[in-house]
Amino acid sequence: MSFERPNIAKMHGYSPGEQTGSGDTIKLNTNENPYPASPEVAAALRSIDVDSLRRYPVPMADAFRESASRLHKVSPNNIIPTNGSDELLRLAISTFVEPGEVIAVTQPSYSLYPVLAEIQGCKLFEIPLQANWSMPADFFPQLEKSAAKMLILVNPQAPTGGLLSTEYIAQLAADFSGIVLLDEAYVNFVDPELGYDSVSLINCCENLLILRTLSKGYSLAGLRFGYGIGAESLINPMMFKTRDSYNTDHISQQLANAALNSTAYSKQIWQRVRADRETLRTRLNELGLATPVSQTNFLLCQVPDSIGAKNLYQLLKQRNILVRYFDQDQLRDKLRITVGKESENLALITAIKQIQETSP
Amino acid sequence: MSFERPNIAKMHGYSPGEQTGSGDTIKLNTNENPYPASPEVAAALRSIDVDSLRRYPVPMADAFRESASRLHKVSPNNIIPTNGSDELLRLAISTFVEPGEVIAVTQPSYSLYPVLAEIQGCKLFEIPLQANWSMPADFFPQLEKSAAKMLILVNPQAPTGGLLSTEYIAQLAADFSGIVLLDEAYVNFVDPELGYDSVSLINCCENLLILRTLSKGYSLAGLRFGYGIGAESLINPMMFKTRDSYNTDHISQQLANAALNSTAYSKQIWQRVRADRETLRTRLNELGLATPVSQTNFLLCQVPDSIGAKNLYQLLKQRNILVRYFDQDQLRDKLRITVGKESENLALITAIKQIQETSP
Repeated sequence: MSFERPNIAKMHGYSPGEQTGSGDTIKLNTNENPYPASPEVAAALRSIDVDSLRRYPVPMADAFRESASRLHKVSPNNIIPTNGSDELLRLAISTFVEPGEVIAVTQPSYSLYPVLAEIQGCKLFEIPLQANWSMPADFFPQLEKSAAKMLILVNPQAPTGGLLSTEYIAQLAADFSGIVLLDEAYVNFVDPELGYDSVSLINCCENLLILRTLSKGYSLAGLRFGYGIGAESLINPMMFKTRDSYNTDHISQQLANAALNSTAYSKQIWQRVRADRETLRTRLNELGLATPVSQTNFLLCQVPDSIGAKNLYQLLKQRNILVRYFDQDQLRDKLRITVGKESENLALITAIKQIQETSP
Repeated sequence: MSFERPNIAKMHGYSPGEQTGSGDTIKLNTNENPYPASPEVAAALRSIDVDSLRRYPVPMADAFRESASRLHKVSPNNIIPTNGSDELLRLAISTFVEPGEVIAVTQPSYSLYPVLAEIQGCKLFEIPLQANWSMPADFFPQLEKSAAKMLILVNPQAPTGGLLSTEYIAQLAADFSGIVLLDEAYVNFVDPELGYDSVSLINCCENLLILRTLSKGYSLAGLRFGYGIGAESLINPMMFKTRDSYNTDHISQQLANAALNSTAYSKQIWQRVRADRETLRTRLNELGLATPVSQTNFLLCQVPDSIGAKNLYQLLKQRNILVRYFDQDQLRDKLRITVGKESENLALITAIKQIQETSP
């Protein structure tokens, strides 16, 4: 017997990257941060009293909203805290997009978006990136033609690592009649000298909703904490109507707040990941795995046909090194590799060298 | 400018009970447990290493599912862990009820249900309880006539405190063609001698979805952890399709698991709340506030017209005692009072006495 709604019955769920319980595995497949959260976060964790959990949490995570507003120089009313950024994606779709309406995404993009569109009964319109991962020249005409209610862009992009400029985002938001949901999951790893800053755009673009997460930049994937930044007309309906009343818990509120207030520590971590990213990229290119510049904490490298991406993924897995292989168009000859600790990156490079040397 | 879907634009959000930051307030308004979670939960909290938060949590909370399956003598596949039981309610509606279809509830009931129905664009069909809070004799004919896809029942009932028998639930689930969502948020406080047990019904009733939460019975409202129990045909679509991929976080999984494994401690707490509930009920009745038997951790008492429920609520609030007043039909002459610690219950009774003595 099935009670499922028809659109749920016919859909498939999202497949997260492999998780592993083994401490020996070098895990470079789900873009987790190789360094722990700040000492301030550790102190916040130690200060939690189990008796404080008897009570419901502060419904709107007021302290976190204040911290985020100071960090981003916006009002607390421009911030919505969520149970991971997954919740923000779902809330945005279920609040603003009717079943049957269109959601536009680039192709490739984050594989969760099509799943969320299906759950809401929305149509998905995919606009392919060019071979070099840049946006096609006719992106906006295609978007207009789709009559999309919402456009979801990851910036910096996943799984490609590229970055759209602030000016491009501003123009897009100004021209588009629907909502631009800008998924900035990886924004903390962007080179500061690029001067990328989308947050200031929320003052002029009432249709721009920016997604942030503490999973990557703040080493808190296990905590499930994200937030949205946008005009009050976008934030309020989610905050006061569609959000589960107590969507973030007491512990995660304290830790997330401590994380945002550990700026000096976080900046060091991001700088270190960027430096290691460049070293790893150089090594991969030297080995013949063409790897373009990335503004994220991962690299997307092209694997020569002589080895093959899927084969290399499997051979690395046999050596206890997990990377991400996507069985989909444009990506079957590539691997996405998270920037790990220096020793982990070195182990990866050594393993690829060995595999190349023993290949026929 | 508003981008909201039409049904969201016209709706109002849910109003949770008042929360207060003041340590002096006696808080008997949101059904929180007056005693802390078990020593095992405190130990689990102390054992969390902040470095473990770098990684994504176990996506399906395997250890918790195992513990819940042992506790309830079902398969782990019959269990879905959720970010508070609010998430289970939302998931059940968004997975099984199409926009435009009908959700049936009793009146009065938990005030969140109509909000969730509105978000999904569902119609709400309310079946009034009788004056003594029992189900009307023609409940099932009314339900059938509504053509509801889902019936949501709180058992033991909120805000009335009454209990429907296992046999009544079994008959209802057998006769009804839709899903029976049985919200057992307060089930831990039911007198064990009543032998109430709905969980065994999931083996014969494929349309029965049972909701549990750790907020009340396990003193963990601040943690946001609930779960569903049901046939795999009900659990799987939510588990593998509509749930956010990492809906419960690493810390809450560990603490929730420890809570379910603290059976001896929990049973003591529940017994104590039951005993204090009876004492409080006796005192309220002695003061002329008619208070029927309750199988929950709260009491719904009728306030004589000479004082008035809203007035008493306000006078208690002036004395730093919060109770819950509902401005709605059938409830305007009543207050819902959470069973607190012995000293808190005594302070409440003393305050009501003083108010009565100083009333004109």
